[in-house]
Amino acid sequence: MTAPETEAPGSPAIRLYVEAPLAAGATVAPSAEQHHYLRNVMRTPAGAAVKLFNGRDGEWLATVESLGRKGAALAVTAQTRRQQPEPDLWLCFAPVKKARIDFVAQKASELGVSALQPVLTRHTQVARVNEARLRANAVEAAEQCARLTVPAVLPAAKLDALMTGWPAERRILLLDETQTGIPIVDTLRRRGDTRGRPWAVFVGPEGGYAPDELDLLRRFPNVTPVGLGGRLLRADTAAIAALACWQAVLGDWTAPLD
Amino acid sequence: MTAPETEAPGSPAIRLYVEAPLAAGATVAPSAEQHHYLRNVMRTPAGAAVKLFNGRDGEWLATVESLGRKGAALAVTAQTRRQQPEPDLWLCFAPVKKARIDFVAQKASELGVSALQPVLTRHTQVARVNEARLRANAVEAAEQCARLTVPAVLPAAKLDALMTGWPAERRILLLDETQTGIPIVDTLRRRGDTRGRPWAVFVGPEGGYAPDELDLLRRFPNVTPVGLGGRLLRADTAAIAALACWQAVLGDWTAPLD
Repeated sequence: MTAPETEAPGSPAIRLYVEAPLAAGATVAPSAEQHHYLRNVMRTPAGAAVKLFNGRDGEWLATVESLGRKGAALAVTAQTRRQQPEPDLWLCFAPVKKARIDFVAQKASELGVSALQPVLTRHTQVARVNEARLRANAVEAAEQCARLTVPAVLPAAKLDALMTGWPAERRILLLDETQTGIPIVDTLRRRGDTRGRPWAVFVGPEGGYAPDELDLLRRFPNVTPVGLGGRLLRADTAAIAALACWQAVLGDWTAPLD
Repeated sequence: MTAPETEAPGSPAIRLYVEAPLAAGATVAPSAEQHHYLRNVMRTPAGAAVKLFNGRDGEWLATVESLGRKGAALAVTAQTRRQQPEPDLWLCFAPVKKARIDFVAQKASELGVSALQPVLTRHTQVARVNEARLRANAVEAAEQCARLTVPAVLPAAKLDALMTGWPAERRILLLDETQTGIPIVDTLRRRGDTRGRPWAVFVGPEGGYAPDELDLLRRFPNVTPVGLGGRLLRADTAAIAALACWQAVLGDWTAPLD
């Protein structure tokens, strides 16, 4: 539930992710949090326009039909954007402490990942992952950045279990801090044949993967190890940098979304 | 004053930026903050090794010779890395609120910028820039990421004044959210002749540059406008993404630092 700080005049500033189907004539009830946001935070007047998306039916204009103390109704009127195919890029990351994990979820959503996969590794400092909180951060960022989807939040998994069930067709971009000599952009450009195919960016915890974890990952057939130069990047910085390079070379930064 | 969370065994974990000259046999007095950090936070024993750098003389090992209540002496012993040329990349950014500006300074330092230039634009929400705080964040990130320099923090400037005195040889990578069609990596690759030359990344405030500001910037001879896809990126996300792409194509991510 986020209003961008500025918006084109006449365009509704409020953009909400909903689960209900969206079509002309449909009526959508906002969630309890959205209801509170519309009524008490934004003091939205009846008749105001908002934008809705659900990850399936594109983006729609809706009118605030009623906004009472107990409930609200949003009347869906016209489609503003059609649903589009989006890059299928997972971020597989070792969970970090609270502020930084919020940050990773927000930035990765802005950078267009399709799923957030927390991965527990040997050096991971955080044992419990608050998936609801990850999801809330992903939703808020998706609302704000004008995506038509929200990244899936996959259940946290131990690295070896994750790799045992790894789908063979999903390629892995492995941020390998021991391999500073393999430049990310040149390496990704040589994989131009994989554009439109599923990928995942793997970033280790602060302190890196353990040597046997790196061995496990490097043995996978579809793994592409890369380095990000000689400075020691924090895990969150490395994740954002790699997602940006991937979008710029193999993702949708070569053309506008619609 | 930062200890990385893990470090190769036997390598000193503490790495400090100092202003004094560094050479074998020199004795360096830590600053008051560093003294407090060594004595009270890290409880460093006498005889412990630390690493020092000053942006000019490379990186050196030093031994904690004395660490009393009133002062300390670090005895410089051996050089661990020679000073290297680094990319000359400024980040010209509209200052944002406290947590986000800390974040921009930290991430930009990790990503190897040579200078941080706060720029006041029409839509900039923040009037006063705490340059000492920017500098402290840049120093801490430089200590942690193993850089041999600390980015300069340039005095905040209004956009028109900055551009009036702009050095003609410094090229500008302009993040232009109205130009989603100009892909950043392909565009930078066509500027391969500028590798090793001065560049600056320009990122506007939340809400973007005003139209006349964009006109002013686009008129510069050495400006390269690029887009970062169709999602609306926050200013800090856009800055990090662009710095990463620049380092990956024209900077030092194609070879280790030393």
